[in-house]
Amino acid sequence: MSTIDPKTLKGFRDFLPDQQITRQRMIETIRASYEAFGFEPLETPALEYAEILTGKYGDEGDKLMYRFKDNGDRDVALRYDLTIPLARVVAQYGDIKKPFKRYQISPVWRAENTQKGRFREFYQCDADIAGSSSALADAEILALAANTLRALGIRPADFVVRVNSREIIAAFYDSLDLSDTAKTAAIRAVDKIDKIGRQGVSDELRKSGLSGEAAESILAFADTSIDAVNDESELAKIGEALPSIQKPLAVLADIIEKASVLAPDARFVVDFSIARGLDYYTGMIFETTLASAPQYGSVLSGGRYDNLVGMFANKPVPAVGASIGLDRLFAALEELKLVPAQKTVARAIIVNFDESLTDDYLALASELRVAGVNTILYFDAVDIKKQLSYASDRGIRYALIYGANEAKSGKVMVKNLETGDQREVLWKDIAQSLV
Amino acid sequence: MSTIDPKTLKGFRDFLPDQQITRQRMIETIRASYEAFGFEPLETPALEYAEILTGKYGDEGDKLMYRFKDNGDRDVALRYDLTIPLARVVAQYGDIKKPFKRYQISPVWRAENTQKGRFREFYQCDADIAGSSSALADAEILALAANTLRALGIRPADFVVRVNSREIIAAFYDSLDLSDTAKTAAIRAVDKIDKIGRQGVSDELRKSGLSGEAAESILAFADTSIDAVNDESELAKIGEALPSIQKPLAVLADIIEKASVLAPDARFVVDFSIARGLDYYTGMIFETTLASAPQYGSVLSGGRYDNLVGMFANKPVPAVGASIGLDRLFAALEELKLVPAQKTVARAIIVNFDESLTDDYLALASELRVAGVNTILYFDAVDIKKQLSYASDRGIRYALIYGANEAKSGKVMVKNLETGDQREVLWKDIAQSLV
Repeated sequence: MSTIDPKTLKGFRDFLPDQQITRQRMIETIRASYEAFGFEPLETPALEYAEILTGKYGDEGDKLMYRFKDNGDRDVALRYDLTIPLARVVAQYGDIKKPFKRYQISPVWRAENTQKGRFREFYQCDADIAGSSSALADAEILALAANTLRALGIRPADFVVRVNSREIIAAFYDSLDLSDTAKTAAIRAVDKIDKIGRQGVSDELRKSGLSGEAAESILAFADTSIDAVNDESELAKIGEALPSIQKPLAVLADIIEKASVLAPDARFVVDFSIARGLDYYTGMIFETTLASAPQYGSVLSGGRYDNLVGMFANKPVPAVGASIGLDRLFAALEELKLVPAQKTVARAIIVNFDESLTDDYLALASELRVAGVNTILYFDAVDIKKQLSYASDRGIRYALIYGANEAKSGKVMVKNLETGDQREVLWKDIAQSLV
Repeated sequence: MSTIDPKTLKGFRDFLPDQQITRQRMIETIRASYEAFGFEPLETPALEYAEILTGKYGDEGDKLMYRFKDNGDRDVALRYDLTIPLARVVAQYGDIKKPFKRYQISPVWRAENTQKGRFREFYQCDADIAGSSSALADAEILALAANTLRALGIRPADFVVRVNSREIIAAFYDSLDLSDTAKTAAIRAVDKIDKIGRQGVSDELRKSGLSGEAAESILAFADTSIDAVNDESELAKIGEALPSIQKPLAVLADIIEKASVLAPDARFVVDFSIARGLDYYTGMIFETTLASAPQYGSVLSGGRYDNLVGMFANKPVPAVGASIGLDRLFAALEELKLVPAQKTVARAIIVNFDESLTDDYLALASELRVAGVNTILYFDAVDIKKQLSYASDRGIRYALIYGANEAKSGKVMVKNLETGDQREVLWKDIAQSLV
């Protein structure tokens, strides 16, 4: 029989143990951070009826969706994010107590252009609050974002939560007296400021027919970036300079003030260039960038979306949430050396030294495992050098050597494979000596 | 705008928090058990090239696969199990150290007939050893199965690991001198003994043209079920009565003897009726049934498959593994009352009693969360009864009440919502009093 070429599908990845151990640990840290805020776990299916998902992400989103007919000729699609499935769940189960705070950590699928270094399957870690329009809910989401990054080992000085609000953006552009087309073009141009720069935005604005004056005020607006906690007076000044946005700005300042009580050492910056691509946001929006790895863009973002659940329910359900792109954050943390390398979950290996002692090896393995020491037993009684080299390559810390002499004395030779040290330990003390 | 009907795709399920909290805890227990044996985590994509998956599960399997053309016109399919992706990975990454012990806990997708109560998305928890043909590897898999069920709270008396071997089955049928067609029909009939009973098998055997004598010896063979650890002499007798299977039976007895050193209190039973449907098994095979919930069938099964990786590699790679059907096991454990109900991850709720004290509430929430107490803050200063009823409904243990009086005294009123007891605790002692 001819063999089948073993290959991963284009745009998809395998996570071998040396990566997956660390990813797993990151997921556990994120989960603990979300649960500290009382977010409950939810799991929704990978596949949904296509009509649930389509039309929510814009034309681009619909095009990137994995959509197909199932065996029963149903029009189905792989989930594109975790927000729409949440909206469906909130509408579907009327007896869910609100506010409903839930998190979900799951893969999503998008047929992205892989030439841009993007992948077609990636994990999102979402926390959302459905059923509250309180500023406290917005504040909790911002604090959650900051505290989760702290829990992952990122120092407060190394990240910035950049906050804006759709209401501020709307009020500002309304005050400019532009046509709807010009307004949309301007918002789109400003949203690209991180990619095309200030001059690029200026060019686009002029190209779309805006007057020099209008383009200038839009650029000045987008340039606004104020440390909301430490420069409160600056924030007040902006409000005075732009009376049209005074009211929504005060709402945002209140949210940030509350968030900074919950996350005292985080930096929250009001940044009017933040727009978030997705149409469904209605209030506060935010992005989070790493000071030392800005090239990864926003690793954690979200905002308020008060109209989304209403697409499935007969009544509006206000909601606000945050989403971590796990794999992007993982890549950034690897670059910042904040991901400690760990190649194995095993702490000890029992060297297979003498086949006649197999029952002792098995009993030792069993005892260590019960005591919480993750233990490997080498299966074949081959050359001990080969076994130790296997253990070293795998990154296992301790090798346990036990032959006829040790069996007589009731001891086990413990070799530390990192330092090369070795010592004899009584069998009964062995588990404790490895913990 | 008309609303979209919020519904879950047929054959798929949402796991709301009261279920997902428990599922999550089960997954963590299984993971810890697998890691104790030194199995490393692996994650493979949900989608694979269809040619990787097809032809491995028989015609039935191919029919149940979610297979479609992606946007790049690639022939792709959702993974049907976790074993074939492992085989691909082992063949694809030549530098993986062998024996490679890996686990993966992930959903798989099969377009099953939902009328049989089956679901189309379900989790498998697989642990496999690739690259060893040692009996110790088989023994570890059997012991892992037993120890994992123990870790999940199932007592040794409440489950049986039923073990057989494809080599025993082959040797037995070879000794009967049947045609290949008759042999296949007989194996298929015996495999259904749990479903159609002894008489049903007998009828099928006669219908397929077997002599009464042959049918009788097949039934006697399939009836063989011996406690391999406690009835060793019985096992020897069987070997003497059926000389054709003596050799593979001795191999199996050796595996079980080793497994029982690793898992001393487990019951391993040699049961010749176990066949396992999948074609790819080559050696030891096993199923695990719960004594008090036999209707769930096997909740944990597996075996040795020495030819599968070879379909992707240029050389054979022996392998052996175990797989838990998480959702079936979850349902069985629920029935056995071994799943403690937990509706929330939150331990405390801060009652929003007086809006002027919001900053204190935020500071208290922050302090409790840092101290490891999962805490909810009620967002609106509504009637306290409504807040307490929300907390009770969600299953939260402690309500923290803090108004002007408490603010003066530096104390917090702690109300136990299960017992109704309440007491005043100094703010600084509050976290400790809730742990």
